[in-house]
Amino acid sequence: MLDLLQQLGLALRIPASFVIIEFVGTMAFAISGIRLASSKRFDWFGALIVGMSTAVGGGTIRDLMLGVTPFWLTNSIYIICCVISLLWVVIFGKYLISQKNTWFIFDTIGLALFNVIGIEKTLQMDFPLWTAITMGCVTGAAGGVIRDILINEVPLIFRKEIYAMACIAGGVVYVTCFKAFGMSAELNALFSSITVVVIRLLAVKYQWHLPVLKGDEDKEA
Amino acid sequence: MLDLLQQLGLALRIPASFVIIEFVGTMAFAISGIRLASSKRFDWFGALIVGMSTAVGGGTIRDLMLGVTPFWLTNSIYIICCVISLLWVVIFGKYLISQKNTWFIFDTIGLALFNVIGIEKTLQMDFPLWTAITMGCVTGAAGGVIRDILINEVPLIFRKEIYAMACIAGGVVYVTCFKAFGMSAELNALFSSITVVVIRLLAVKYQWHLPVLKGDEDKEA
Amino acid sequence: MLDLLQQLGLALRIPASFVIIEFVGTMAFAISGIRLASSKRFDWFGALIVGMSTAVGGGTIRDLMLGVTPFWLTNSIYIICCVISLLWVVIFGKYLISQKNTWFIFDTIGLALFNVIGIEKTLQMDFPLWTAITMGCVTGAAGGVIRDILINEVPLIFRKEIYAMACIAGGVVYVTCFKAFGMSAELNALFSSITVVVIRLLAVKYQWHLPVLKGDEDKEA
Repeated sequence: MLDLLQQLGLALRIPASFVIIEFVGTMAFAISGIRLASSKRFDWFGALIVGMSTAVGGGTIRDLMLGVTPFWLTNSIYIICCVISLLWVVIFGKYLISQKNTWFIFDTIGLALFNVIGIEKTLQMDFPLWTAITMGCVTGAAGGVIRDILINEVPLIFRKEIYAMACIAGGVVYVTCFKAFGMSAELNALFSSITVVVIRLLAVKYQWHLPVLKGDEDKEA
Repeated sequence: MLDLLQQLGLALRIPASFVIIEFVGTMAFAISGIRLASSKRFDWFGALIVGMSTAVGGGTIRDLMLGVTPFWLTNSIYIICCVISLLWVVIFGKYLISQKNTWFIFDTIGLALFNVIGIEKTLQMDFPLWTAITMGCVTGAAGGVIRDILINEVPLIFRKEIYAMACIAGGVVYVTCFKAFGMSAELNALFSSITVVVIRLLAVKYQWHLPVLKGDEDKEA
Repeated sequence: MLDLLQQLGLALRIPASFVIIEFVGTMAFAISGIRLASSKRFDWFGALIVGMSTAVGGGTIRDLMLGVTPFWLTNSIYIICCVISLLWVVIFGKYLISQKNTWFIFDTIGLALFNVIGIEKTLQMDFPLWTAITMGCVTGAAGGVIRDILINEVPLIFRKEIYAMACIAGGVVYVTCFKAFGMSAELNALFSSITVVVIRLLAVKYQWHLPVLKGDEDKEA
């Protein structure tokens, strides 16, 4: 079953549409990092590193935890995507506000795909289902946390955004399709991705937030 | 000798009392993270991640350095402990101040146990004794550093607390018992844990601090 | 060829001069971290950890990514260098300003050597040339980023210093000598190191900076 999944998983990523989504998603993540770096007056190199951390940081943590070589060390396309993103911001910087919705869509589709990639990679290594959901969430959301640490801000996803929760919902859909209904990897990925995209779009449109944890007014824990 | 240690080490963790200490210690660590996150107005998810980082972050760094799969990826009990901790803070938040001493004791006992677990795991992999002491300290103290980075504060243990030093003292006791006196793993663990607990309790009671390093009034290093 | 490189690489590090450079470089890195920690009123332990993170942090990230045990876990000399650095700052703290140029030179030579070590270690594991350049840069520059995260500042190298770029230039020189001219590992290392040192010295003397990335005046990326 896992062998079959593996083959399907490989087949899944061969179609050109998926490769394009991965690269556009990588660029959307990188651009979000580069723009935040620019608001902090980083130089070009600093902005590139923040962009790369945003784009490949989540997958790197996932790969280190799974005990495999970080995916971007053996394929230069990811660094190239990040360099293109830097040039894009340098050249089209003043138009990025008008491109905001476009990049938001790319970012959301990228999130959905990164989540699926993380889930599949973890399942192929015989980890439990809940580990796969966790690693999908790490793949999608941890890059943004590293980005915010590098620019010395409290991580955004801990305070404002429905981002990781969309990944977790997408992960639950994936493993349910996979385990309960025995669906093909393509369909698992499709339903999972739709879940992530729909939840994130609705969350932004209707300003969904998780409840803030009330402090006990005692800061010396 | 190491084989024997390994068997004793495994036996050591079977007794129910040790399992209970590990889970209560995990919860104490998680609650310290969740409370600090709540003082920063994090949402529930953010607080859970900060709690998890505090509880399993040190062991994760240890396992990545030792080249093994992070311990919490194959046993869901650790995430469950963290979720219970979150619910505990949500439900009993206003009583946490009155529970302060209780959780401080659990936190200290947890620290002692995590230190021993880190030392034993490292020794079982044939690393030098000083590496084991270092990894015990990492297991106990690094989670708090990750917590403080995530809430964007200067790590507490670098400025105020005798925390890591208690681990190091406990580690020295462990390897001395192990190497010089050839004592059993249970006794090593017991004496090491007592050392950690006593030093931490005394440090808090008598406000022991390490000396602050005097700056050279030249901040451009 | 790689076998030959490996043998040469091993030979390269045997000469006493190289060992001395590595330890002096480690101390220069550690001292830069310890001084910054002291300006933040860290205690001795905190300062030691920041110093160690600066000195061995880059190589640790490199080793984790390459899938090998962090180099300092099996050889206690690196921790000893960091402890000596701490004592040096404690004892000679008030003279450090007058030693500034000396430690700047040691820091720069250390950077060049760490870069070469990172490149060679990566090439020996059959990674692509660009990965080796990247890992050289990580070895030299990532420790400073961890240092700045621990003291809760925006990483210096993202805003002000020509530091990583010197590593990248040195890396390009290394792989060019290695691949295009088929030179010996000693010569590769020599030319690469000279490149790093010269670029860094010129950058500081003539205050070279990378251009700052202009923000789009929209901070909600």
